[in-house]
Amino acid sequence: MLDLCTLGTGGTMPLPDRALSSLYVRVGGRSLLIDCGEGTQVGVQKLGWGMQCIDGILISHYHADHVSGLPGMLLALTKAQRQEPLHIYGPVGLPYIVGGLRVIAPQLTFPLVLHELKDDLSPFHIIGLEVTPFALDHGMPCLGWRLHLPRAAAFDPVKARAAGVPVPLWKQLQRGETVTENGVTYTPADVLGAPRPGITVLCATDTRPVEAIAEMGFRCDMMILEGMYGAEEKYPLAVKNHHMLFREAAALARDAEAGQLVLTHFSTSIETPEEFLPNATAVFPDTVCATDGQTWTLRYPQE
Amino acid sequence: MLDLCTLGTGGTMPLPDRALSSLYVRVGGRSLLIDCGEGTQVGVQKLGWGMQCIDGILISHYHADHVSGLPGMLLALTKAQRQEPLHIYGPVGLPYIVGGLRVIAPQLTFPLVLHELKDDLSPFHIIGLEVTPFALDHGMPCLGWRLHLPRAAAFDPVKARAAGVPVPLWKQLQRGETVTENGVTYTPADVLGAPRPGITVLCATDTRPVEAIAEMGFRCDMMILEGMYGAEEKYPLAVKNHHMLFREAAALARDAEAGQLVLTHFSTSIETPEEFLPNATAVFPDTVCATDGQTWTLRYPQE
Repeated sequence: MLDLCTLGTGGTMPLPDRALSSLYVRVGGRSLLIDCGEGTQVGVQKLGWGMQCIDGILISHYHADHVSGLPGMLLALTKAQRQEPLHIYGPVGLPYIVGGLRVIAPQLTFPLVLHELKDDLSPFHIIGLEVTPFALDHGMPCLGWRLHLPRAAAFDPVKARAAGVPVPLWKQLQRGETVTENGVTYTPADVLGAPRPGITVLCATDTRPVEAIAEMGFRCDMMILEGMYGAEEKYPLAVKNHHMLFREAAALARDAEAGQLVLTHFSTSIETPEEFLPNATAVFPDTVCATDGQTWTLRYPQE
Repeated sequence: MLDLCTLGTGGTMPLPDRALSSLYVRVGGRSLLIDCGEGTQVGVQKLGWGMQCIDGILISHYHADHVSGLPGMLLALTKAQRQEPLHIYGPVGLPYIVGGLRVIAPQLTFPLVLHELKDDLSPFHIIGLEVTPFALDHGMPCLGWRLHLPRAAAFDPVKARAAGVPVPLWKQLQRGETVTENGVTYTPADVLGAPRPGITVLCATDTRPVEAIAEMGFRCDMMILEGMYGAEEKYPLAVKNHHMLFREAAALARDAEAGQLVLTHFSTSIETPEEFLPNATAVFPDTVCATDGQTWTLRYPQE
């Protein structure tokens, strides 16, 4: 099970009822944030899912609306006497950006571990998720994220008995360990059934449409994409500012055969995102415009 | 006339209904901010008195809750295509702090003029106010501010006639100019009555009580002081953290013979500041606990 909250759904500048774009992701009691604009710590407080359980912050890029809330978040964690390391992931330039912002957050109670993602965009693991960063097209180094929550294969007692596995070893094997007893070696494959699909979420702001989004998000459960501009006539502006139209985001979700599409990161020029929702649903019906504080729970299939 | 708004009244960390401490001051259509914590730009939007008319930002000190909103404010002004210079005043270290924060606000549409206030705490003028900075006691360089709006003496036609000033010169003299005509020199004193009192506001957060507050705020119209802690039992914490109790702030207002006292910058440990208001009013009756977005209009006496 994976819980999500769009803490804020605004792009560029916050509005009184629309905080800057930030996503809270929770798995098994631990959490991470994707982007951390001004006001994110208040969004975390309002949500009530916990601040101390945040183990990582993934920064897409270094425009202020995605990172200006970082000093406040670091200080809030310090005030709460956090001891565990906090991991920050971001594209090239991360030490420079965090170093600059830390002029007002010089003393922390916990280690800050910076992961500057340059040439190596290998998957990494945090809060039980396999996170794969990939390059977006925003006119500056900018990363999207594929979050995959794997699911262990189910225990199959019929298979275990057929393989002659002694019952006292079942638990160890189910946990993934290999055990040798009386000269016989047993492996997890002796007691586990077929692999089971996990949960996959694809997040990408800010960017023009790129094929990598549909490829990395192929048959994902949810795509969370920027919907910076709703109206078709904003197309030249979208191209100029390296953003997307609602329609373009929907086309990516359609191409990826995604389960559902959540639009966020709305321009301040959009008063009511739903007004332009038909531009997206005409291309990909299962689309919603996120609101601040909206939550989703994604479950394993047939869970 | 001088308008004030406590955009936020929180200290240390913002709460969902209590933004970080920031004060909006407006005189004659131009404005300044005192402190600029995370979320200040949203407070300015909510207030609706204008963002582009902000000519200066006075930073008391460099704890994050007083300055973390600066990058967002700079970008909001840039997005609005501001051209006029923006003046930032703050204690020693200003270029280092602003330089650090500007890693996420590198490109602005307007000149940023930094006034680092070190040894010379002379008054300066902005938006028609005479601003006098003075040192507070917060365990780090920290400044309080005396804001004085002077009022010109009234034009006195009886006096002007008695001095034999030709009527066509009255306006020039009233404006403060000295004029010579037909070998006779006339001065503003020839046409102006007695000096008239202006409006004075004293702002001081964060600090232990210091005599300078009462001295600089002597007979001011309004004192705006931190009320970090309400309960008397917080005294050791107030001393340790270089903050004040409600009672201590009230004693300064009493000693200064201030017109009224506004408490702000409440600890997150205070749920309802009014609960502790009697601790202040017992010492200085004309005290209120500010709320976010509360406004005041101060007028000249007998205006």
